[in-house]
Amino acid sequence: MTVIEATRNALTLGRVPYTEALGLPALRERIAQDYRGRYGVTVAPEQVVVTTGSSAGFLLAFMALFDAGDRVGVPQPGYPAYRNILASLGIEPVPMVLREQDRFAPTADLLQSTHETRALNGVLVMSPANPSGTVIVPDALGDLCARARRLGLPLISDEIYHGLTYGAPAATALQFEPDAVIINSFSKYHCMTGWRIGWMIVPDGLVRAVERLAQNLYISAPYLSQVGAIAAFDATEELEAVREGYARNRAILLDAFPGLGLGKVHPADGAFYIYADVSNLTNDAAGFCRRMLDEAGIAATPGLDFDPAAGGHHIRFSFAGSEKDCRDTVGRLRTWLR
Amino acid sequence: MTVIEATRNALTLGRVPYTEALGLPALRERIAQDYRGRYGVTVAPEQVVVTTGSSAGFLLAFMALFDAGDRVGVPQPGYPAYRNILASLGIEPVPMVLREQDRFAPTADLLQSTHETRALNGVLVMSPANPSGTVIVPDALGDLCARARRLGLPLISDEIYHGLTYGAPAATALQFEPDAVIINSFSKYHCMTGWRIGWMIVPDGLVRAVERLAQNLYISAPYLSQVGAIAAFDATEELEAVREGYARNRAILLDAFPGLGLGKVHPADGAFYIYADVSNLTNDAAGFCRRMLDEAGIAATPGLDFDPAAGGHHIRFSFAGSEKDCRDTVGRLRTWLR
Repeated sequence: MTVIEATRNALTLGRVPYTEALGLPALRERIAQDYRGRYGVTVAPEQVVVTTGSSAGFLLAFMALFDAGDRVGVPQPGYPAYRNILASLGIEPVPMVLREQDRFAPTADLLQSTHETRALNGVLVMSPANPSGTVIVPDALGDLCARARRLGLPLISDEIYHGLTYGAPAATALQFEPDAVIINSFSKYHCMTGWRIGWMIVPDGLVRAVERLAQNLYISAPYLSQVGAIAAFDATEELEAVREGYARNRAILLDAFPGLGLGKVHPADGAFYIYADVSNLTNDAAGFCRRMLDEAGIAATPGLDFDPAAGGHHIRFSFAGSEKDCRDTVGRLRTWLR
Repeated sequence: MTVIEATRNALTLGRVPYTEALGLPALRERIAQDYRGRYGVTVAPEQVVVTTGSSAGFLLAFMALFDAGDRVGVPQPGYPAYRNILASLGIEPVPMVLREQDRFAPTADLLQSTHETRALNGVLVMSPANPSGTVIVPDALGDLCARARRLGLPLISDEIYHGLTYGAPAATALQFEPDAVIINSFSKYHCMTGWRIGWMIVPDGLVRAVERLAQNLYISAPYLSQVGAIAAFDATEELEAVREGYARNRAILLDAFPGLGLGKVHPADGAFYIYADVSNLTNDAAGFCRRMLDEAGIAATPGLDFDPAAGGHHIRFSFAGSEKDCRDTVGRLRTWLR
């Protein structure tokens, strides 16, 4: 309600103008400030780029850092838009296949071995991850950042699910690599999906390039969403209540899943997903999801969206719903899987 | 106020979700319907793509129609983001240099001669134009569409200033070429700049490609802006009053400019700009504009933004302000230019 109130007030003034390409100064300031409180790192407001959702952040980062023909390492499984945006720009996404022995998190060694097989021009990591929720623990993220620097690879860190963790909070790549390009958004922790508002942190040397791209590709992020985003920093109490709801939902599913034959899951440290290996049940996750929707009324996302290799026997469940829906889902799954 | 009221009401409901990648069905329906009333052409709601401003429309159109290495004809002078977005995608913008004998509008022959010099893969036209406001008269637009088709070139028509004309209304390329890709926006006639909301009309065969690109590059346009845009169609009375204000401002400037040595202007048929050849005053339009701002308190845009060739002795004035500002500007210009 904090965000909605602020936006309603802004509407009363009746002016909804373009803003600076890099965003409203007050929002850039507020975001920069949050990095000190949350992570203990210093970010200058000038390094903050307000974007039309994280979608715009990816496009701006890829365009500013890479050329057509370049190759960028991306975790697999991973958010499908990485691959698709890169490909739309003529940049080759190179899968870094996540391994069970690494808790399904990307590591410095995985980056290096990928780079040795197929010379990279940059790397993208995500923590907590989509589809799995897996967090890269601080030491591992530090190693990854150091290795990327040693290999001369710019690092993009997708931190869109920060704030939604159920153990230790996630570290930002900026704690280890001041030149990392950070992508974040108000869509997840702040629940502001349809507002299409996010941000990047970029090193000083990249600000002007990103500003010129943003001016030409977007003019600016939506004004009302920027006003709402400023207010979102004052909504912590509401937002923590939402996170606690997710935590309860997560516990319900993680408790029940092993008994349902869904016990082989990636570490669901954060976000609001559980990524389950269902090879004991099917090798056609898409068909399985379709039947589960038709017969049990449960919607889940087949793994092929995230992983062209092993996705055929993986499924992503989201627990960003109500506690009642999660309990119902367990009951219906139990009946259906029998 | 119609738009603001609708948006405030939507906020009261408290839900601001993602929408379909192609936009809210009610908005797509409303836009399609408007084409029948306004131009007498039939557009199916399925052909309407709601975009995050026209900026997104250009990116989607260029990505869907062209590949890196392709060449696209663009009018010169013209909106600088055309060149810059194309270049950011590795597509070469090829200038079609507008000629006085054509009223500074692109013609079928200009397209053909450009194509013969430098083989094109497509063409972009704009009417009313930025920076000049020049409208392509219906017959000339029909010829252009026919020639583009004969040459096998997809045609993109930027119609963002439609509705803002001071003589005959502008024709849409769809009246002549059903496969034209139309770019439009709520930023100009509807005064909704900071909402970042626009639309495309695309031929059936292109819808799915654009949808896939939009899903990956944007997820969706901002929800509140889509809700506001639906209401914008009910704000005609307010908007026509705004247009009448522009018409008065335009008359004030066009009456006064010849006496000020600013009489050599492109036809200002529409939009809210006057594009003046100031070669009798300077060949350094940028310096001239800087001095005019410092010394006379008048801001105008130097032509180099629109035209790397002849822009050094052109200036764009905007009359999207108050009548009082326009009258003051004339007075101050008279004093300053003396």
